[in-house]
Amino acid sequence: MKDFIGEHDNMKEKFYQYIQSLQDIICHKLQEVDGKANFQEDIWKRAEGGGGRTRVIENGNVFEKGGVNISAVHGELPETMRKHFDVKEGDFFACGLSLVLHPKNPFVSTVHANWRYFEMYNKKGEIVDSWFGGGQDLTPYYLFEEDAKHFHQVCKTACDKHNPNFYPNYKKRCDEYFYNTHRNEARGIGGLFFDYCKESDNMSMQNWYDFVSEVGDSFLEAYVPIVERRKALNYTDKHRTWQEIRRGRYVEFNLVHDKGTLFGLKTNGRIESILMSLPPHVQWVYDHHPEAGSEEEKLVKVLEKPKEWD
Amino acid sequence: MKDFIGEHDNMKEKFYQYIQSLQDIICHKLQEVDGKANFQEDIWKRAEGGGGRTRVIENGNVFEKGGVNISAVHGELPETMRKHFDVKEGDFFACGLSLVLHPKNPFVSTVHANWRYFEMYNKKGEIVDSWFGGGQDLTPYYLFEEDAKHFHQVCKTACDKHNPNFYPNYKKRCDEYFYNTHRNEARGIGGLFFDYCKESDNMSMQNWYDFVSEVGDSFLEAYVPIVERRKALNYTDKHRTWQEIRRGRYVEFNLVHDKGTLFGLKTNGRIESILMSLPPHVQWVYDHHPEAGSEEEKLVKVLEKPKEWD
Repeated sequence: MKDFIGEHDNMKEKFYQYIQSLQDIICHKLQEVDGKANFQEDIWKRAEGGGGRTRVIENGNVFEKGGVNISAVHGELPETMRKHFDVKEGDFFACGLSLVLHPKNPFVSTVHANWRYFEMYNKKGEIVDSWFGGGQDLTPYYLFEEDAKHFHQVCKTACDKHNPNFYPNYKKRCDEYFYNTHRNEARGIGGLFFDYCKESDNMSMQNWYDFVSEVGDSFLEAYVPIVERRKALNYTDKHRTWQEIRRGRYVEFNLVHDKGTLFGLKTNGRIESILMSLPPHVQWVYDHHPEAGSEEEKLVKVLEKPKEWD
Repeated sequence: MKDFIGEHDNMKEKFYQYIQSLQDIICHKLQEVDGKANFQEDIWKRAEGGGGRTRVIENGNVFEKGGVNISAVHGELPETMRKHFDVKEGDFFACGLSLVLHPKNPFVSTVHANWRYFEMYNKKGEIVDSWFGGGQDLTPYYLFEEDAKHFHQVCKTACDKHNPNFYPNYKKRCDEYFYNTHRNEARGIGGLFFDYCKESDNMSMQNWYDFVSEVGDSFLEAYVPIVERRKALNYTDKHRTWQEIRRGRYVEFNLVHDKGTLFGLKTNGRIESILMSLPPHVQWVYDHHPEAGSEEEKLVKVLEKPKEWD
């Protein structure tokens, strides 16, 4: 996958190498945590340029389904992107790592993370714009405040090394973005979301690279302790049913609202790599409401109005 | 729900009375076919005007989940509708019956149907436009050609009483509409789809009413024999897994592509009535492909390229 990397394209080469290495580190650790299933790898090519390395884990001890995928695609801007960015023509390069993990045990939270880099070129091949984006967020089925606080604390620590405004800003944007407007509730308890991180007086692209890779490096520290604390808890069919119903909300968000998913589906992305984010077993029950005072209701109440966890 | 019916509004009153009665007839028959579960009724009101009567059946002998809903809503055109119809202001009235049935047995097809009537008014309250729309379509998990032919034959017979072009035209539009472009496959084996059926030299609104109610009246004849033929067939976990994976495609269509669903979600419709269309138990398995030469593959091949059934 070297074909698209020109000699002077330091940032895209550097970031792509970073996410390749991060994919290895994350998959290695998650396999160790799971103790049973291994990631299966699929290398794919995009007809219009570039491709990806999809790694999926299924039916593990801990992870019922999950994917840790990287891709680096390039070529002419597809029509949807030209429209979105309001340009008539041009080429692009985009690379990123996307992961979603759906644990089997309803007491272990689902997690999502994504770190990406984008370049746009004019017809002479000169970079006219470039930016980073990404984030990580947690979706529990049962609320353990300790887990939510831990996840946010790690996010905050990574952010604070770069700018004291990053955590409050990106925490807020995460709450706003991962929101099922048609349900009036958040998908989960949030984390970080940032996009269009561009060169400015305060931040060079190298500064942004340092920030994004700091967040990427913090992922395992943010998530693994939560898995370890909850993975052996006993659960019943009742807990499992609740988890499957809540997973339905995850599907609703990803298919109705998530810009990345819809963008992929409408620009001929690799469908199986995009939809690895969907949970393995899901239920839709008509007009389901948790019992008053139950643990299930406690979660829903927190999702109705995002709160501060730091 | 009489408040929106003016004295001279014959068509909207007539059609709303028709779908009320059709809901009763369909629910009565489906309960008889099921033999165990009954429809539960929810009456709801829309804050901006109108409301509906949702009837849902769950955990039956035959129907794992299904809804047969009517609604009649009216008021100012919401922003999304003003945009869609390219008008600056105005009021509307819309009523319809929507049904989706998800049988438990993987050998029984899922069915969807909808019949609706729409009026648009200027600020003086005069009708400036009105039309009918609707259709019915079948989604099998295993292909029985006899079932597909029967369903289409009933559709064709109903159409042919009104115009010999209706069946070929509306069959084709159904194949085009219920298509998962991101999967390059049809949702099911089709049926009828028609929309914006307006007054013309050949067809008065009364003619359209006669046609749409002919199709509505044909629904039970189109679907019930298919259920009766297959509902007692033995099946295994393997068949059930396939059904749940295919139901995932049903969810993908409804949440990513279906205009009615997205319209409802984005205009503050009653969420539980809209999403009753989603199946009860669903699976997403990474990169699943049926075995070569299997019954599962036979279905997929037919969905890749819609065919003639009459």
